[in-house]
Amino acid sequence: MPTKHHAAGNLPGLREVWAARKRISAYVQETPLFLSAELSKRYNASVYLKLEYLHPTGSFKLRGAANKILSLSKAERSRGVATFSTGNHGLAVAYMAKELGIPVSVFLSSRVPGAKVNNLEALGINVVVHGVSQDEAQEYCLQRAAEEGLTVIMPFDDPAVLAGQGTIGLELLERCPDLDHVIVPVSGGGLAGGIAMALKAGVPGIRVTGVSMEQGAVMYHSVRAGKPVILEEADSLADSLLGGIGLDNKYSFPLVRDFVDEIVLVPEKAIARGMSLLYQRHRIVVEGASATCVAALDQTAVAPGSSVALILSGNNVDTGTFFDIVNSNV
Amino acid sequence: MPTKHHAAGNLPGLREVWAARKRISAYVQETPLFLSAELSKRYNASVYLKLEYLHPTGSFKLRGAANKILSLSKAERSRGVATFSTGNHGLAVAYMAKELGIPVSVFLSSRVPGAKVNNLEALGINVVVHGVSQDEAQEYCLQRAAEEGLTVIMPFDDPAVLAGQGTIGLELLERCPDLDHVIVPVSGGGLAGGIAMALKAGVPGIRVTGVSMEQGAVMYHSVRAGKPVILEEADSLADSLLGGIGLDNKYSFPLVRDFVDEIVLVPEKAIARGMSLLYQRHRIVVEGASATCVAALDQTAVAPGSSVALILSGNNVDTGTFFDIVNSNV
Repeated sequence: MPTKHHAAGNLPGLREVWAARKRISAYVQETPLFLSAELSKRYNASVYLKLEYLHPTGSFKLRGAANKILSLSKAERSRGVATFSTGNHGLAVAYMAKELGIPVSVFLSSRVPGAKVNNLEALGINVVVHGVSQDEAQEYCLQRAAEEGLTVIMPFDDPAVLAGQGTIGLELLERCPDLDHVIVPVSGGGLAGGIAMALKAGVPGIRVTGVSMEQGAVMYHSVRAGKPVILEEADSLADSLLGGIGLDNKYSFPLVRDFVDEIVLVPEKAIARGMSLLYQRHRIVVEGASATCVAALDQTAVAPGSSVALILSGNNVDTGTFFDIVNSNV
Repeated sequence: MPTKHHAAGNLPGLREVWAARKRISAYVQETPLFLSAELSKRYNASVYLKLEYLHPTGSFKLRGAANKILSLSKAERSRGVATFSTGNHGLAVAYMAKELGIPVSVFLSSRVPGAKVNNLEALGINVVVHGVSQDEAQEYCLQRAAEEGLTVIMPFDDPAVLAGQGTIGLELLERCPDLDHVIVPVSGGGLAGGIAMALKAGVPGIRVTGVSMEQGAVMYHSVRAGKPVILEEADSLADSLLGGIGLDNKYSFPLVRDFVDEIVLVPEKAIARGMSLLYQRHRIVVEGASATCVAALDQTAVAPGSSVALILSGNNVDTGTFFDIVNSNV
């Protein structure tokens, strides 16, 4: 019998998530599921925190990057990998490539601050500065990759990346088989789409709430429009959720559209309050994207007595910003 | 054949640690072992952080308290448990007793701040205020326990508590079988003695370094004297390491004496720098006791290329203190 695939094309399923877990297990440790007494009390439910910021590069992105890079052939590995992300995804790609001794190039525009360039160069990776915008750096990355046979590790719209992020769904259900509801940040849809697909494959009735900041919620508006759209960006505390989903999106958009039950939008003030609460009550330091999940508890119906998990996706936050938020949200 | 015991009497061994793990596994989750790229680079070694602050009450103390309470008979459980600790141990005892529906009393002196009393009462446990010093509260606790048949859960000098803390040693060796060296905070010796015993049972050649603050290092001076001693206390950032070991110490003193290779003392400034480094590089927030392990890296010989684990024991630190430390140790 041929392997079954999702109707929309080669979308990853639970089999690919299991394969991903097997592949990445030597490099990616299971993260803890932490019961928040404070949030449980406030929302009359068992509220768990999935501590995805505890990976070596400070975010869940390692899972998808590891699964993609470990799926490459020997020839592809020897030619090397490339990324045009300077954020959590770029760090994860650089980390995994270095772990495996694979050549890695990061493409940036000249607008990226010198300190960030220095940090990347300090990792001993190849940093290529080209163009004056992220779009130009991306275009140049794709061009050079085509010329030199590099594999570009896409941040979310890739079946291997989605399957890698989906391993979070397996861990959630194994640790908490009676889980009712998962709240997950949404940007390009790699995290939300991967987790939602894995969860619903095992437990079709589980509820998945996506969450984005109010301004620039591209996936939210794309799902409403029925196709990928482009939006103006605005600054947000949840800066790692900014960015588009790609007008030619093939994988993460359909997974989010089909498996995420709702996407809620949260105001900046609620994100700040969420960051402060996690610190004040649990001494957990996270970036704004993670705290959107806490903010979302006020925007979605949490069933009394249910078990809810929030995905704390990353912790790359500036100290000054963080201390100011905690000091002004006591 | 009779069960073998350590020469010094009924000291716990590896068998008791395995039994402890089985007993507590439904209540205590394995904690992550996090490779610190920063410390690994600085010390030319693989430096791992054991994140023991990730338990529900913010410290490793849950392991020992859970093992002791779960070892009680039905009759003992129904009569209830008591503690005279207002710190991490008291929180762990209160948490586990509540999880199991066992009556629990915490004995405090009138010197304990009202806010702390209120916090304990908010947990729904029985708070008894008596006497004007910790010693008087302890004496009254023991007296009432004898009268009412309560089991006093001792903070460190109990075989079940030591075996519970020893489960950390198992996790360390299972995740990192080639571990060479473990650095662990020392106060009453429950953590250091339990871990060192478990580690050396499996790998006799592994090195265990204990660490305390410079002033009031009671176990350090007791080991040097060959018997438990009493010392004057001084304030320390590692406040959870303060306190005596008991002149009638039966279990934790011999385990530390026999299985910990050395105890190093670290200055307050180095503790503060350790706290700041863990935050700056890893967004980890811990109390001073945990950071003594980072400070100890400058006081003990770390073999080039070796694998070293630091036990980050707890995170109960005041926000003002913590922010001041980070701001003044950039």
